[in-house]
Amino acid sequence: MIQPTDEQTYRHNLDIQIRFNDVDRLGHVNNNAYFSYYDLGKVDYFNQVFHLYTEPNDILPVVVNINADFYAPVFGADDIVMQTTVSHIGKKSFTLEQRAVNRKSGQTVCHCRTVMVCFSLKNNTSVEVPEDFRRAICTYEQKEL
Amino acid sequence: MIQPTDEQTYRHNLDIQIRFNDVDRLGHVNNNAYFSYYDLGKVDYFNQVFHLYTEPNDILPVVVNINADFYAPVFGADDIVMQTTVSHIGKKSFTLEQRAVNRKSGQTVCHCRTVMVCFSLKNNTSVEVPEDFRRAICTYEQKEL
Amino acid sequence: MIQPTDEQTYRHNLDIQIRFNDVDRLGHVNNNAYFSYYDLGKVDYFNQVFHLYTEPNDILPVVVNINADFYAPVFGADDIVMQTTVSHIGKKSFTLEQRAVNRKSGQTVCHCRTVMVCFSLKNNTSVEVPEDFRRAICTYEQKEL
Amino acid sequence: MIQPTDEQTYRHNLDIQIRFNDVDRLGHVNNNAYFSYYDLGKVDYFNQVFHLYTEPNDILPVVVNINADFYAPVFGADDIVMQTTVSHIGKKSFTLEQRAVNRKSGQTVCHCRTVMVCFSLKNNTSVEVPEDFRRAICTYEQKEL
Repeated sequence: MIQPTDEQTYRHNLDIQIRFNDVDRLGHVNNNAYFSYYDLGKVDYFNQVFHLYTEPNDILPVVVNINADFYAPVFGADDIVMQTTVSHIGKKSFTLEQRAVNRKSGQTVCHCRTVMVCFSLKNNTSVEVPEDFRRAICTYEQKEL
Repeated sequence: MIQPTDEQTYRHNLDIQIRFNDVDRLGHVNNNAYFSYYDLGKVDYFNQVFHLYTEPNDILPVVVNINADFYAPVFGADDIVMQTTVSHIGKKSFTLEQRAVNRKSGQTVCHCRTVMVCFSLKNNTSVEVPEDFRRAICTYEQKEL
Repeated sequence: MIQPTDEQTYRHNLDIQIRFNDVDRLGHVNNNAYFSYYDLGKVDYFNQVFHLYTEPNDILPVVVNINADFYAPVFGADDIVMQTTVSHIGKKSFTLEQRAVNRKSGQTVCHCRTVMVCFSLKNNTSVEVPEDFRRAICTYEQKEL
Repeated sequence: MIQPTDEQTYRHNLDIQIRFNDVDRLGHVNNNAYFSYYDLGKVDYFNQVFHLYTEPNDILPVVVNINADFYAPVFGADDIVMQTTVSHIGKKSFTLEQRAVNRKSGQTVCHCRTVMVCFSLKNNTSVEVPEDFRRAICTYEQKEL
């Protein structure tokens, strides 16, 4: 099995609670369920870094592209940790990198790159990444982006 | 297999689109998925009878009790129709009866009784069933309730 | 709000990881998601008490009835613990009682009674509750059932 | 809004039944739900073209990469049709192209490219695309791939 050459450093880790109905006919976690795992990591990251979903915000990042690799099956009894980082911040968009790691084997089972665009609900249009978003992320990640 | 003695007349029928990830390890539709099927019937019923979810409403019915019987397994390739009716309207609450029927076998595979209470979002309290709800339901069901 | 008079003692507790897509238009956890929470409790209970899903078994309990009360809304940021116990063991069936408690308020937000029948996959028929199931449950619950 | 320049011809169309719990806090269909819509199209395509899920098969295509663009929000009351085609067949893998179109506006709301590898369950290894898979797809798509 080819493992990704993943140069990211992941500071954010979240254990995933796999549900009975995540598992399909073959005993594998269904492809769909992975995206709810990425969401769990994403929401927790944003809440921790800048309280995105716990405080009212006009500006919300919306997903414009998801690119997901599946390296190895996940089984219902596996212990999976989701790792999340921001790898790039552009003018109006930023890029999230995430991977799930099997705690027992240490294997990266999947990886996802998500491009999000900042969107103003009030003005119904894309907007620049707010300076406090950028600063909070750089502080959390301990690097310039 | 015991079949329910179900005295209801069901005027509302909705074909259910079973999803790949509704199906579990044993090839059966997962118990959880049944409740999204009941919801499909419920939402379509309310939209048809009084445009509940397609127009803004202060008063929404909220679920207070669900009582569901499982008679026979459902498989991913089955053709299932959800049937919905209102069997009782009280002062602040009403009762929904639903069952899913396998189109090929004619068998009732499950049945659910749901008690809903009318709730005012504005006043954050339960309220009486609005007269136009009651009338719309009785007209649709062609009986007094 | 009426609280249930719940005489059960719950030895089994499981923290629930609420997902972003459990939450509906009104910010509440969707009714459907509750049933995946009950499943999380149920699967963990069975695994802990008699390794039901982690070892191959011919005899599986299947759900025949679910009776669920909804007492209070759950929000996406709530901390919820699912409590599970077995309240009754019959000849071929047993009854599971579960409730979810909001950790901050201490409030019971919902309650569910599930009747399960023991089913032999090999013989495709209901069977008596195996003696080792019964004993494992009574040992875990520290009472006769 | 930028529309994709999508050169594919889609012969396979499937209407999607949107569920109440597909819709999130903002009234939009949740990103996760899109992947169950892609699955609906995929399963129906495979069943129609070569009875993949309705007959027992040793060889199953497994997903190795998903690349999904989100162009416009989908609302709970929208009529959405999923279109599916195979754009490329390699030695061991093939590529599925899918898009969802809003029936009222004619707008493409999202697009997904999925790379699948043929996998033998018996031998637990990737295998060449079976010749009857390839022929069935080419016949259905009315072109050489």
